[in-house]
Amino acid sequence: MSSMFTSQDLDALADQSIELPSWAFGNSGTRFRVFPQAGVPRDPFEKVADAAKVHELTGLAPIVALHIPWDLVEDFAALRRYAEDLGMTLGTINSNTFQDDAYKLGSLTHSDRRIRQQAIDHHFQCIDVMGQTGSRDLKIWLADGTNYPGQDDIRGRQDRLADSLAKIYQRLGEDQRLVLEYKFFEPAFYHTDVPDWGTAYAHVEALGERALVCLDTGHHAPGTNIEFIVAQLLRLGKLGAFDFNSRFYADDDLIVGAADPFQLFRILVEVIRGGGFGSTSGVSFMLDQCHNIEKKIPGQIRSVLNVQEMTARALLLDRAALGSAQDAGDVLAANDVLMDAFYTDVRPALAEWRASRGLPANPMAAYAADGYQERIELERVGGAQAGWGA
Amino acid sequence: MSSMFTSQDLDALADQSIELPSWAFGNSGTRFRVFPQAGVPRDPFEKVADAAKVHELTGLAPIVALHIPWDLVEDFAALRRYAEDLGMTLGTINSNTFQDDAYKLGSLTHSDRRIRQQAIDHHFQCIDVMGQTGSRDLKIWLADGTNYPGQDDIRGRQDRLADSLAKIYQRLGEDQRLVLEYKFFEPAFYHTDVPDWGTAYAHVEALGERALVCLDTGHHAPGTNIEFIVAQLLRLGKLGAFDFNSRFYADDDLIVGAADPFQLFRILVEVIRGGGFGSTSGVSFMLDQCHNIEKKIPGQIRSVLNVQEMTARALLLDRAALGSAQDAGDVLAANDVLMDAFYTDVRPALAEWRASRGLPANPMAAYAADGYQERIELERVGGAQAGWGA
Amino acid sequence: MSSMFTSQDLDALADQSIELPSWAFGNSGTRFRVFPQAGVPRDPFEKVADAAKVHELTGLAPIVALHIPWDLVEDFAALRRYAEDLGMTLGTINSNTFQDDAYKLGSLTHSDRRIRQQAIDHHFQCIDVMGQTGSRDLKIWLADGTNYPGQDDIRGRQDRLADSLAKIYQRLGEDQRLVLEYKFFEPAFYHTDVPDWGTAYAHVEALGERALVCLDTGHHAPGTNIEFIVAQLLRLGKLGAFDFNSRFYADDDLIVGAADPFQLFRILVEVIRGGGFGSTSGVSFMLDQCHNIEKKIPGQIRSVLNVQEMTARALLLDRAALGSAQDAGDVLAANDVLMDAFYTDVRPALAEWRASRGLPANPMAAYAADGYQERIELERVGGAQAGWGA
Amino acid sequence: MSSMFTSQDLDALADQSIELPSWAFGNSGTRFRVFPQAGVPRDPFEKVADAAKVHELTGLAPIVALHIPWDLVEDFAALRRYAEDLGMTLGTINSNTFQDDAYKLGSLTHSDRRIRQQAIDHHFQCIDVMGQTGSRDLKIWLADGTNYPGQDDIRGRQDRLADSLAKIYQRLGEDQRLVLEYKFFEPAFYHTDVPDWGTAYAHVEALGERALVCLDTGHHAPGTNIEFIVAQLLRLGKLGAFDFNSRFYADDDLIVGAADPFQLFRILVEVIRGGGFGSTSGVSFMLDQCHNIEKKIPGQIRSVLNVQEMTARALLLDRAALGSAQDAGDVLAANDVLMDAFYTDVRPALAEWRASRGLPANPMAAYAADGYQERIELERVGGAQAGWGA
Repeated sequence: MSSMFTSQDLDALADQSIELPSWAFGNSGTRFRVFPQAGVPRDPFEKVADAAKVHELTGLAPIVALHIPWDLVEDFAALRRYAEDLGMTLGTINSNTFQDDAYKLGSLTHSDRRIRQQAIDHHFQCIDVMGQTGSRDLKIWLADGTNYPGQDDIRGRQDRLADSLAKIYQRLGEDQRLVLEYKFFEPAFYHTDVPDWGTAYAHVEALGERALVCLDTGHHAPGTNIEFIVAQLLRLGKLGAFDFNSRFYADDDLIVGAADPFQLFRILVEVIRGGGFGSTSGVSFMLDQCHNIEKKIPGQIRSVLNVQEMTARALLLDRAALGSAQDAGDVLAANDVLMDAFYTDVRPALAEWRASRGLPANPMAAYAADGYQERIELERVGGAQAGWGA
Repeated sequence: MSSMFTSQDLDALADQSIELPSWAFGNSGTRFRVFPQAGVPRDPFEKVADAAKVHELTGLAPIVALHIPWDLVEDFAALRRYAEDLGMTLGTINSNTFQDDAYKLGSLTHSDRRIRQQAIDHHFQCIDVMGQTGSRDLKIWLADGTNYPGQDDIRGRQDRLADSLAKIYQRLGEDQRLVLEYKFFEPAFYHTDVPDWGTAYAHVEALGERALVCLDTGHHAPGTNIEFIVAQLLRLGKLGAFDFNSRFYADDDLIVGAADPFQLFRILVEVIRGGGFGSTSGVSFMLDQCHNIEKKIPGQIRSVLNVQEMTARALLLDRAALGSAQDAGDVLAANDVLMDAFYTDVRPALAEWRASRGLPANPMAAYAADGYQERIELERVGGAQAGWGA
Repeated sequence: MSSMFTSQDLDALADQSIELPSWAFGNSGTRFRVFPQAGVPRDPFEKVADAAKVHELTGLAPIVALHIPWDLVEDFAALRRYAEDLGMTLGTINSNTFQDDAYKLGSLTHSDRRIRQQAIDHHFQCIDVMGQTGSRDLKIWLADGTNYPGQDDIRGRQDRLADSLAKIYQRLGEDQRLVLEYKFFEPAFYHTDVPDWGTAYAHVEALGERALVCLDTGHHAPGTNIEFIVAQLLRLGKLGAFDFNSRFYADDDLIVGAADPFQLFRILVEVIRGGGFGSTSGVSFMLDQCHNIEKKIPGQIRSVLNVQEMTARALLLDRAALGSAQDAGDVLAANDVLMDAFYTDVRPALAEWRASRGLPANPMAAYAADGYQERIELERVGGAQAGWGA
Repeated sequence: MSSMFTSQDLDALADQSIELPSWAFGNSGTRFRVFPQAGVPRDPFEKVADAAKVHELTGLAPIVALHIPWDLVEDFAALRRYAEDLGMTLGTINSNTFQDDAYKLGSLTHSDRRIRQQAIDHHFQCIDVMGQTGSRDLKIWLADGTNYPGQDDIRGRQDRLADSLAKIYQRLGEDQRLVLEYKFFEPAFYHTDVPDWGTAYAHVEALGERALVCLDTGHHAPGTNIEFIVAQLLRLGKLGAFDFNSRFYADDDLIVGAADPFQLFRILVEVIRGGGFGSTSGVSFMLDQCHNIEKKIPGQIRSVLNVQEMTARALLLDRAALGSAQDAGDVLAANDVLMDAFYTDVRPALAEWRASRGLPANPMAAYAADGYQERIELERVGGAQAGWGA
């Protein structure tokens, strides 16, 4: 069974956990239109239920990340028990400083001390939630930036950002971490306060050991070699988390692996090479996607399968042969070794692997036959359907 | 007065009209957040009033473009009279096929004949409106495209698009035109059905003489030389309209000239060179911007001033000296002639020019002192504030 | 044998011919350095011999394209006989207007009539060569453009280009074609005279039926959807040729399929969809690559194998299932059908297919064992080794 | 005189020194063609003479940077005396690890220890030269990288790079500095070993206080906000040097300010804001350009004038008014303050300023009238004309 894999590979595959974002199950869209879908969750419990369905069919996704305030509930202990009853744990807490009117011109970087404090307090609230949910990671992605040259003082904003982050970092518990996410542009269109991995690195380096960088695969300039950044951050000991998705143009938030599967493969090759794979690595694998036009739950199933399939290909890489070709300076042979792993069709072996573990061989087909989608479309009527910001 | 300009330049400046988009006065934002502003219009009449204020202070903007269905009113004759009483005319009619659920997977390109017909019928409705508003141009920008490879048949969509456009074109009156706008990406993230000027050109060429291309300055791939496209479309007789704005990254819709003033200058140099300037040229100068964080009316005032200032610089270009340097193959001298026009500070002369025509020397200061903003913020309370889609 | 393919697929694969560029076998590099390699050809005969070796081992590459003046010989009839004796034919004639001092500021677009005539005469010479080599296609790629705004008149250059091309087109024989290649930038850095497919299309459309566009896969702006252009040019009846290669950044001229194999797959899917595949399609499949650091001949072998493997995957696409999913608006299912073809490992079946036709199952290994490389490295000593420009 | 400037501004302008690269005076080009020019220098003495002419006419360029081995001379003391007699000093020593066959697959990062040592030894040689020339800075730009995925181990190369740099850094004298330059791509096309400021920063941070980053304005991904990086590196105390030039696409190496003058302005605004301006700031202002088609010496004159003019505009920025508008959150007013400085025509005042200091009011015209160009074209015949690599 799965004869192309070694038992070590199979152990590694069994150790893979992908974290699902609660907001992937709600409605999403572009500035032009959010197309509503039937059956989307109306509260955090229903989001957790949907995530649990993804995990049930794939065995890959036992963690669900929350977004505050979108996922605020009165009783987080109840939400946690609900999740655990479904075999899930609550994961990363994602803060939000982009939907309050106060933050129009910035949050942690704002020139007004009171608004900065409001944003810091929001993160304190997130840390409180983490205590209740048992979450390890506080993830900070900032929409902060400016739209016009001169609008604000770029340098002053960095200093204020450093100060705000330090206050948040100090509030963390000993087992908690801060992961700082960078983004090239959007929603700010002239400058972004954390636009690149270098900026995120400089800040987390200054904060301390439990501050790390989050790499969202859609947050780079055109042409950026992302696997290089993965390798570099692992080398510097500062890669804390991924936000996986894919893109053709900007931060398109498409299904991971859909736009450039070979890039995803190369990223995973560097992850494994640099010790970033597996539950003890300290690197969390999260999705951050928007299923604007496709169905949400099968969109998430396809996504975790894509990550697993590429991981499997990366595990197949014959690193000894690769190293020999590299040492010999044989450019074509080295490239051939890499491509051989990429071009191997791991899908039949993974289907077998799933079947051997009591999972459906074909999770996409299993979901289609499951009846879950039909049920939620019938049941989830009325109430406020969850969407970005809801 | 204005001694740096020839009388021919001054005539040309006096002949400049910039068309304002009604939606620039409403709320706008990104997928992350639309920040509401006080005093934004609640109906098309208030939008026209705001546009008229821009024109009153600048003498540059006597036309306001409408968006259907956002600007649907029961009595277009009344809206037209209201505009004319304020010294304005109603301009381009912009169709909208991106906010109806039916169009999630396409409109004029949709594989379902009924949805295509719905989109065609919407354009027939727009043409009816044009009859009432006295508009010359029907502008079609399509959100059509796909997010995933394989999602639909790229080639089949082109054929369906051609067919839909032909039906719309045939419905136009003899004095009416169709202008087809292209866009690189967004809201579709894998392929867009009219992604580049070549595609728009191929379609309008097939349609006939009254079909032309609309060039939105924010709708190109990174690094694209836009002034080249301007020159080419003028050469081919197919430049119908501009949608002016500026960008650092994608379709940022910032104030025209804010991101790369030198690019705006080069575009206007080619416009004048190719006969695209002035009221008889058949090229309309429209703005298409989103003032997400700055105030709307002064944002539009700044925009039309930027266009005028750059036009003035382009008019100052010593084309005889330029031609001599070019013919001599003197690269540095030719570039120097061009830069000399760009670096000339035309602002004092334009202030004089405005004063001589009974306009405020400094329209931005005049607006700040006008009291209009305070008044609309007080009066426009209640009702549905206009925003994208409202 | 090759049970995943239908007999129709196998016929199609057997019908595939890839054209090799003679210059791929010579030294090449960047502006920083051309690293010389042992054994590279010293004259066009040796280039043809190397191309024949690629064909011998793959059965895919029976045509070799020439570059004038790099491949000028006294007796083209002798070169043609030499090629034919090796089972090869001489293919596309590529003109060169970028290495003569006269062309520093332009060739077919130059403001000096004499320099334009010199460039036109060069193309007449190429057409004469075509008569002797039996070539069908004259390929024109122009380095023409400017480095600085104002350096020359963009519009005037288009008019001169149209005039020059018309003179060349008129000289062609009835069975000959002109293919015009566009390129985004380089070696010109401000504007390029044929920068995009739209410009190439407008020119060839004006010339006539035997004027077509050449699409080099490395000649686009970042993010450009190339398969869309393929589909569009096929729809317009104007796709004449490919120059295959791959890129991460600019015109990197890497081995085709090396940078983004999924993109190559999507291109080939549209080629087949649009009737551009096969010897009767009128679309020539050429490579245009630089093996700067890897060995030349195995670099070409790898390249033609990559094209064949991706063609095989594209042939496997279940177009009926795809169409059904598309018509149903099932985004995920349609994407899955496409990805299923891409992820299928066709390599074992193609190895079988080669063996059944008397070709080596593994052409890369066969070349390594062949002794040819060792022989040319020994024999080709002295003389001027061929490189770009030699 | 120069009434728009304060005396503080005038002091600052007087304190500006721009460093000229010796290689800008030699022939250069693209991979397609190096067009030779008459009168280019044949040895380092003639390069220094040309640089001195630029300084004589502008008062801005008293330093000339050397490139080793291109500028190796037997007697550096003689070269230094020659320069000093002309009022020039010898500046930054630029190493070269991209033109030796050994470095085809890497230099300081190469997997072969002997090749790494060869590259380290080359830098030791450069440090020896620095002792003789009195240079402060050793600038390291590496062509190292790979063309194909898998070609080499990205992570291992970083570790080897760190080790090599440490050995070089240790060799520096106490008054000497190492400046590490990053570059997005070219000549490597898959990955580059120092591709971004984050990587350069991580390395120089590890090395020590006298290791700094060099920012070449042409070495970034499309859309990168360069002034942000300037502000960040100044904040981190790690901006050591600029390589000024401009670009529309890639590393075009055009005249600084030619492609996007507003970007140059914004960069200089941040330089001044962050304390990076003036002879005591520790930030060196160097040009790194290729005058492929324009004349070399006037190309350099235009370049230093562009830097000075933009510096003058940046000095005119009313920082008090800017700060007030920023603090008030008035986006349009803040942008207006910035644009006011940019749009001010400083050229007449700078002409006066030059005249008052005994310099030609119009250095471009002065050079044209000088007779120097005619003289060098006559005299510099025979010998090996200097070019990239010569």
